[in-house]
Amino acid sequence: MDQFLHDHPITPRTDAEKQGVVNRLKRIEGQVRGIQKMVEEDRYCVDILVQISAINAALKKVGFQVAERHVKHCVSHAVKSGEGEASIDELMEVLKRLSK
Amino acid sequence: MDQFLHDHPITPRTDAEKQGVVNRLKRIEGQVRGIQKMVEEDRYCVDILVQISAINAALKKVGFQVAERHVKHCVSHAVKSGEGEASIDELMEVLKRLSK
Amino acid sequence: MDQFLHDHPITPRTDAEKQGVVNRLKRIEGQVRGIQKMVEEDRYCVDILVQISAINAALKKVGFQVAERHVKHCVSHAVKSGEGEASIDELMEVLKRLSK
Amino acid sequence: MDQFLHDHPITPRTDAEKQGVVNRLKRIEGQVRGIQKMVEEDRYCVDILVQISAINAALKKVGFQVAERHVKHCVSHAVKSGEGEASIDELMEVLKRLSK
Repeated sequence: MDQFLHDHPITPRTDAEKQGVVNRLKRIEGQVRGIQKMVEEDRYCVDILVQISAINAALKKVGFQVAERHVKHCVSHAVKSGEGEASIDELMEVLKRLSK
Repeated sequence: MDQFLHDHPITPRTDAEKQGVVNRLKRIEGQVRGIQKMVEEDRYCVDILVQISAINAALKKVGFQVAERHVKHCVSHAVKSGEGEASIDELMEVLKRLSK
Repeated sequence: MDQFLHDHPITPRTDAEKQGVVNRLKRIEGQVRGIQKMVEEDRYCVDILVQISAINAALKKVGFQVAERHVKHCVSHAVKSGEGEASIDELMEVLKRLSK
Repeated sequence: MDQFLHDHPITPRTDAEKQGVVNRLKRIEGQVRGIQKMVEEDRYCVDILVQISAINAALKKVGFQVAERHVKHCVSHAVKSGEGEASIDELMEVLKRLSK
């Protein structure tokens, strides 16, 4: 796989795609700020933990969205170019991290 | 368990404790903003996924820190007051969410 | 915490409790054998992965059942005996492992 | 994707591959039986939880091994045959389950 593949996805994200992911991440950023406020206001631990779980779930969702696009574009391209092996090894490695 | 327990921890967090958790959350907030930038710059999917995994790990760490304090203060207090059952059921419920 | 606590739970499991957990584990054992058969019969990968996910979910359920009893008996006893700190540290450590 | 793909992997597993996975599963089966014995002997909860975590980790490892082979053979074949979309959707679905 040439170096370019490691800097950018093989098919550039459209503006709509970028906006979709960025919007989700902005919501998550807001949730993280919300927890800071909860801690500062000395709110009940369990309520804070429920919020942390919600953020983790939201982040995993974004992760799988990014991973799906990666497989449909970058990995698929690599497979068709006869470079599937390295691309799939890289994919599995990052999926293991994501599932921890 | 009376209502008060559900609004605040039984032992108020010290300023140092609050600061510690808030600092970790601020770092996480910065990481989430960092991913937004990566998406906008159309950075490589796997690099984005590695960052998402890192945030998830950092969030889990904060979660366990909050949970530990919760058990050491709120749950322990409930146990000593003969109200351990309800407090532990609530704890297990939130730990299940956190482990998803 | 004295050594005895590390060999057995503070309140011995009743026969009914033991049977309940063992029955769940026997079902899980049967599921693991089922997957071996699926592999030997060269069954479709995704069907095998669905079964593996089911076993992981079942095991986590047993884990949380054991953990809940542990908190309600061993940890609660330790808290009442003024040895909560060490018992809760041990609990958090094993919960982190379980949530991986 | 034709029906055949849903019954068997596109490239049949070799005997060596089958043996490798079955051996891991046999070890896991033995570990599950080991926990049953621990419960029957009323062993300490935390020791049981450590064993459950170990089995979960071992199962995830088998899961990722099966998933990797699935992507390298079945999904790659589907991609080359122009049926990548459906195969990747199926893959992402099962990876989400596995990561819970």
